[in-house]
Amino acid sequence: MLGLTMCLTLTSILVAAQQKTRPSTVLSTIFPKGQKAPATNFTGNAWVTQLIQPDSAFNIPVGSVTFEPGARTYWHSHPGGQALLATGGTGYYQEKGRPIQILQAGDTVKCPPNIPHWHGASPDAGFTQIAITPNTETGRVIWLQEVTEQEYRQK
Amino acid sequence: MLGLTMCLTLTSILVAAQQKTRPSTVLSTIFPKGQKAPATNFTGNAWVTQLIQPDSAFNIPVGSVTFEPGARTYWHSHPGGQALLATGGTGYYQEKGRPIQILQAGDTVKCPPNIPHWHGASPDAGFTQIAITPNTETGRVIWLQEVTEQEYRQK
Repeated sequence: MLGLTMCLTLTSILVAAQQKTRPSTVLSTIFPKGQKAPATNFTGNAWVTQLIQPDSAFNIPVGSVTFEPGARTYWHSHPGGQALLATGGTGYYQEKGRPIQILQAGDTVKCPPNIPHWHGASPDAGFTQIAITPNTETGRVIWLQEVTEQEYRQK
Repeated sequence: MLGLTMCLTLTSILVAAQQKTRPSTVLSTIFPKGQKAPATNFTGNAWVTQLIQPDSAFNIPVGSVTFEPGARTYWHSHPGGQALLATGGTGYYQEKGRPIQILQAGDTVKCPPNIPHWHGASPDAGFTQIAITPNTETGRVIWLQEVTEQEYRQK
């Protein structure tokens, strides 16, 4: 009887610990990780999977991106803007000249057209996000320089 | 020692059961449920939360929808189409004249412009999805008639 009680208690603690860690450290596994993102535009390890392929009737690419801890995009801008939906872990988002914002599951961001910015994971926890890129008739993305360690660590 | 072994075994079974049920029955809780969807366009209980509010620079509404088991939209069409991303549970999607498709977490759908269709939960498991509506300059949605029990139960 004591063994069973101890067992149920341990199980409860483990399940509670799993639930407690979800908002800040558990990555979403809803969508596949996809392909490794190119080292020319990303620092560290990131993966991209295309969820909606654009076509003539439906010109809006949608993708899921997974960042390992410390991984992030280079600085870049979108001529038509981009929406980000945070789906798991802890992420960073920064527009040029503004402080880094922390993103957690459920947070959303509108990156305005032509504003240089970057996004990625925090140093200690990975990050998953959905990216929706509208108005692509003027281009999808303009890549800029790498986010330096000093810029990344200013948080 | 036997108690500890039994305990660890039970814990493993419970954690495995949690993981195993995820694809078909566990709803995503990444985004808030939001507001009850109007009974004029939905059968059963559904909730909608707007994730990206459209504006002049960024005219793409994005929302998360949660359907209770048995809940579904009325038949409707989108002049500019709509993309669906299944985020949890088990859903149904049907275009007029075609069979019902089952949707589970990770599945995606492009609803083509002007094609009557409906979507919602399966009878026994709820469903969560993200909806992305592009090309809204020609209108967001045209609502049609209710999905009858006979249409819904043909699966």
